[in-house]
Amino acid sequence: MEAANPEYAEAVRAVVLSMPAAKHLGFTFGRIGPGEVEIVQPRRPELTEHNGFFQGSILGALADFAGGSAAGTLLPAGWVNMTIDYTVKILAPAKGEQVIARGRVVKAGRTTTVAAADLYAVDGGEESLVVTALVTMRNLKV
Amino acid sequence: MEAANPEYAEAVRAVVLSMPAAKHLGFTFGRIGPGEVEIVQPRRPELTEHNGFFQGSILGALADFAGGSAAGTLLPAGWVNMTIDYTVKILAPAKGEQVIARGRVVKAGRTTTVAAADLYAVDGGEESLVVTALVTMRNLKV
Amino acid sequence: MEAANPEYAEAVRAVVLSMPAAKHLGFTFGRIGPGEVEIVQPRRPELTEHNGFFQGSILGALADFAGGSAAGTLLPAGWVNMTIDYTVKILAPAKGEQVIARGRVVKAGRTTTVAAADLYAVDGGEESLVVTALVTMRNLKV
Amino acid sequence: MEAANPEYAEAVRAVVLSMPAAKHLGFTFGRIGPGEVEIVQPRRPELTEHNGFFQGSILGALADFAGGSAAGTLLPAGWVNMTIDYTVKILAPAKGEQVIARGRVVKAGRTTTVAAADLYAVDGGEESLVVTALVTMRNLKV
Repeated sequence: MEAANPEYAEAVRAVVLSMPAAKHLGFTFGRIGPGEVEIVQPRRPELTEHNGFFQGSILGALADFAGGSAAGTLLPAGWVNMTIDYTVKILAPAKGEQVIARGRVVKAGRTTTVAAADLYAVDGGEESLVVTALVTMRNLKV
Repeated sequence: MEAANPEYAEAVRAVVLSMPAAKHLGFTFGRIGPGEVEIVQPRRPELTEHNGFFQGSILGALADFAGGSAAGTLLPAGWVNMTIDYTVKILAPAKGEQVIARGRVVKAGRTTTVAAADLYAVDGGEESLVVTALVTMRNLKV
Repeated sequence: MEAANPEYAEAVRAVVLSMPAAKHLGFTFGRIGPGEVEIVQPRRPELTEHNGFFQGSILGALADFAGGSAAGTLLPAGWVNMTIDYTVKILAPAKGEQVIARGRVVKAGRTTTVAAADLYAVDGGEESLVVTALVTMRNLKV
Repeated sequence: MEAANPEYAEAVRAVVLSMPAAKHLGFTFGRIGPGEVEIVQPRRPELTEHNGFFQGSILGALADFAGGSAAGTLLPAGWVNMTIDYTVKILAPAKGEQVIARGRVVKAGRTTTVAAADLYAVDGGEESLVVTALVTMRNLKV
């Protein structure tokens, strides 16, 4: 895939990480390429269930941010996107010290982009798949 | 619908509100009946997007909690549930001072329950529909 | 809800029933109102599973047609819609002589409309809920 | 992935192709491996929209069959599965002489398996992605 905006990585990082809800989660970006991003979310107590695992809707939030950010890497400068639809399948309990969310664009359109996200819990350094998700974004010129 | 556990309202309130991720969001329950609940989420800055609206994945979290809690009202004592799947459709920007999430059971099964959730943003006291969602829960005897 | 096209019922019936895939299923419309439709699908052997129940993806097709048709009732004359996304939850085996699919608009937008569909199997004259679904349609001026 | 049933390919082919709804569609299986299958669906007029493209809910049916069949390859002998949930994202019009649906297991569980399916329209021999989908199957010992 090819990025329309040469500054796509900085643009995505800036727009996502300045969002209060994202700041609150406290994730960072790993690798960012055209059409794909990696989000790294450390475990913090307020993101967990009773048993200390990552809570389901936090996983959904990470899937949404990863898919939406991947979609964002392909936007022209001056465009933003917003989620209109996401489906999250929780495959296993998300036990571990962090979750890595990998988003990738499935199909980029002018006004709508579909992305997928897979989330891996990292427990003792070992990754296991815990969520798969699909996200649809609306693209808007600001 | 009929509740198997006469203490269903207390049970759901206790299990949901003691979850760290729910505590962090800071919502309260409104009406709780057999197969339906109302969740009231005040706006706080860390739940918002750049423009001050509720952020999309926070809406997804509220849908998940509302659907899951509605499903929880029908569980026998000593059972819990966990989300295995949710689909969130964001219909409009969630502008306002609070969001009310109304969850209701669509079909209760022994091991799986499907619920729906509709979210309303309350802006200047006026409600408007902003999200519709479907949630599937797995039911487990603890 | 209010229909923009006074001939909405005729328009929806005409555009849907002239579609080869719909003709093949062989359903008819029941009640059609602004933002809601009823589709009646008699059982035929080629729509079933091994056990003679309606097959799952046939139910998905009926949900898609019911949601999309409901959305279509609100389109201005000269517009059409097409499904871009649907989520189908199969709640129970669809046993019976027919399935009634009831579609209703959840939120009508200019370029995108979200609808819901609930399907009821009719067995010995008695209805039971077998599917709930959400459908997103793209609206296009032709 | 590893198949529990050494006769998995024959088992899946037999159970799927003997289903009346599948017979009616008239697809064949291409490659079948543990956790993945390929379904090849020739265009026939009764599977199309007005413009001659594959109709959306037919694409959904192929996604469902491909995901469910992929999941089926990992079942022990004497087990079957049935769809409980599927989400279909239609990415582009499905124009062409056939559609190839590739299903793969995302996560196999004892009672529930999640699979993904990607559909490609083949037009003049050239493949293009037209649908991505997620399917959840319930596994049952017969």
